[in-house]
Amino acid sequence: MLKKLVFQTDFGLSDGAVSAMYGVALKVDTELRLYDLTHEIPQYNIWEASYRLYQTISYWPEETVFVSVVDPGVGTERKSVVAKTKENQYIITPNNGTLTHIEEEVGILSVREIDETVNRLPKSGASYTFHGRDIYAYTGARLASGVIKFAEVGPELDLQSVIMLNNPKAYLKSGIIYGKIDILDVRFGNVWTNISRELFLSLDIDFGDLFEVTIIKNDRQIFKNTITYGRSFADSRLGEAILFVNSVDSIGIAINQGSFAQAYHVETGINWKIEIKKVDK
Amino acid sequence: MLKKLVFQTDFGLSDGAVSAMYGVALKVDTELRLYDLTHEIPQYNIWEASYRLYQTISYWPEETVFVSVVDPGVGTERKSVVAKTKENQYIITPNNGTLTHIEEEVGILSVREIDETVNRLPKSGASYTFHGRDIYAYTGARLASGVIKFAEVGPELDLQSVIMLNNPKAYLKSGIIYGKIDILDVRFGNVWTNISRELFLSLDIDFGDLFEVTIIKNDRQIFKNTITYGRSFADSRLGEAILFVNSVDSIGIAINQGSFAQAYHVETGINWKIEIKKVDK
Amino acid sequence: MLKKLVFQTDFGLSDGAVSAMYGVALKVDTELRLYDLTHEIPQYNIWEASYRLYQTISYWPEETVFVSVVDPGVGTERKSVVAKTKENQYIITPNNGTLTHIEEEVGILSVREIDETVNRLPKSGASYTFHGRDIYAYTGARLASGVIKFAEVGPELDLQSVIMLNNPKAYLKSGIIYGKIDILDVRFGNVWTNISRELFLSLDIDFGDLFEVTIIKNDRQIFKNTITYGRSFADSRLGEAILFVNSVDSIGIAINQGSFAQAYHVETGINWKIEIKKVDK
Repeated sequence: MLKKLVFQTDFGLSDGAVSAMYGVALKVDTELRLYDLTHEIPQYNIWEASYRLYQTISYWPEETVFVSVVDPGVGTERKSVVAKTKENQYIITPNNGTLTHIEEEVGILSVREIDETVNRLPKSGASYTFHGRDIYAYTGARLASGVIKFAEVGPELDLQSVIMLNNPKAYLKSGIIYGKIDILDVRFGNVWTNISRELFLSLDIDFGDLFEVTIIKNDRQIFKNTITYGRSFADSRLGEAILFVNSVDSIGIAINQGSFAQAYHVETGINWKIEIKKVDK
Repeated sequence: MLKKLVFQTDFGLSDGAVSAMYGVALKVDTELRLYDLTHEIPQYNIWEASYRLYQTISYWPEETVFVSVVDPGVGTERKSVVAKTKENQYIITPNNGTLTHIEEEVGILSVREIDETVNRLPKSGASYTFHGRDIYAYTGARLASGVIKFAEVGPELDLQSVIMLNNPKAYLKSGIIYGKIDILDVRFGNVWTNISRELFLSLDIDFGDLFEVTIIKNDRQIFKNTITYGRSFADSRLGEAILFVNSVDSIGIAINQGSFAQAYHVETGINWKIEIKKVDK
Repeated sequence: MLKKLVFQTDFGLSDGAVSAMYGVALKVDTELRLYDLTHEIPQYNIWEASYRLYQTISYWPEETVFVSVVDPGVGTERKSVVAKTKENQYIITPNNGTLTHIEEEVGILSVREIDETVNRLPKSGASYTFHGRDIYAYTGARLASGVIKFAEVGPELDLQSVIMLNNPKAYLKSGIIYGKIDILDVRFGNVWTNISRELFLSLDIDFGDLFEVTIIKNDRQIFKNTITYGRSFADSRLGEAILFVNSVDSIGIAINQGSFAQAYHVETGINWKIEIKKVDK
């Protein structure tokens, strides 16, 4: 069963980089099944790499091996690691924050540092800029195919040594939920917050209820208006905004067949805060 | 043999949506072979989803299962269906017009509505916005892998209940062929009409013949000029327009190593009409 | 083992063209494993198609079959060929220069012209514009699956008949290395030269040495400045340029977390020359 290898990078698909990684993996074991998470992570965006892993890996079978290469520190002393999750999957990545959401939302059982003296593509020693091919794809393929076991990756690290990005949680205070904008559903322009369905429902709400939504960048208000909570986009009229539960069970905001993010120039990150308060009817 | 699952969506590949669908399918059956038609259908463009299915599925083996998710009505009462074609393939899609070309050009043998009480990813009940993952990928995987048979998808519908987009046919009258611009070969800027090779040849023509081509949007002429009919782009000089038989056996217009669509701002749809008339030598 | 088929085109992934090729291949042999090199080769750019093959195929297993379709001459008398490389892989392509780097850097053992009277998708005779589907994918699948042997592709050609693009080599003269800009690492904006690590090291250098780098388009200087030679991007400060050995063992120039190509409007090709000279400390 240890035969699935899934790649995520910020390389894009317009040159040969991803294909070289595929080739390396198939040379290790021609029977491996190779898949892509995405290769369109914005360059160097570790946060988004972490989020996309969180968004998807629970839907994959146990023992799937994920290779994530968003690696602004390639060539520095940052470590290359393999994490084994509590759902019995493996993630191979630079230890740079990419494991943040997985540690917080899924849980990590054990982390090992890749020993590059044994887990490195033979004859690749003169290249220091493409660890995705020479170390990550190679090690991922060897682990997924059973050529090496998890323990043979390299020495175990303390779980405390996993680098974590700052990721404050949403909370409820005096009837207002305070959260942040975590990420965009890029193509449809929906914004996804860090407010869970569970926290939101603690406001005692029903479909059709109205909420005052404020979006703040640093200290400047970007958006302030009332929005209805609906089951799906179709519960609003064309062009109207709607609060909804997204596919990772958090609260999102959409415009039915439009782009909320573009309409109000909303971006993502720790500086993008959101406040939601129920409006009395 | 029922082991191939092909996905088409308007989701793009920049986030984790397609990968989540892949994971769901592989959890159903780890031996499934997964492929993509395209994920770059313009958002909500049901017409193009229908056309891309028509353009490709006949080239695939029998018993292939196609999942097409272009679904502006997600969350409404629109039905989710599985169509069995006369070429013994299956298409899983919202019943929103996506089956138009397949019904007209290939033929549909039988349609069933997906019974979501049994054909829905377990524990996904609180999300109403990602049926691509929770219903379509899940049901497609179960059908392709043989976990369920076609009859177990849900109740059979009357073929009349398949939603069809308006798609007037091209015709010949008094020596002029009247048609419309169906779609673009996006990357190369070629325009593809709904005029079949057969209808075109009824004008009694040879390679090298000249035609007066008029393109009309609503009542405004966008293009009017003579164009040569050639075997391939290379039969014209660089930068010159040419009429040709495209890869779905219809008449297209190209500019050799240029973009006809960009050069004349040609778009697609029912309002984009084309008239072709043979010019006497 | 002859079961891997890898596609490269300039078709993009936004329509059904690549999927039709996949279907054709799977109809030949449902057990084939299909992969992509890239479909984002800029339209008609034979040079880049040649380079991307060179960049990747050595990382793939022996007996892999590559299909490369960048074919501005489709429909002309240009020949369709299959090359067998010295590393025991196969490349199917129009004979238009796509084999340049493979012939120079890997070596070609034998070339055969595709006999289209037998190696053409049945019933595809009326379409002259999609040889990627009707000839290349079909023949590639038959070769990869073992339906035909290499000798059955068609008649053997003289190796001299392989069309080669002009590709002058870098050289060292009076302490200056003269080369050219071959290609971009598009997404990261790094420029890749045709100067090999070996030639570069003949200047007797160490990490940290300084070099005067001049980039010239035709006779106009585009860039002239000193740049440090580093192991990896991280050896420079954010925003600083660096000389490095890239993943194909040639010299590249990057800006740490920036785009050198965009910063200085550097493009690629024979007219883009580069000179590198060591600076005394």
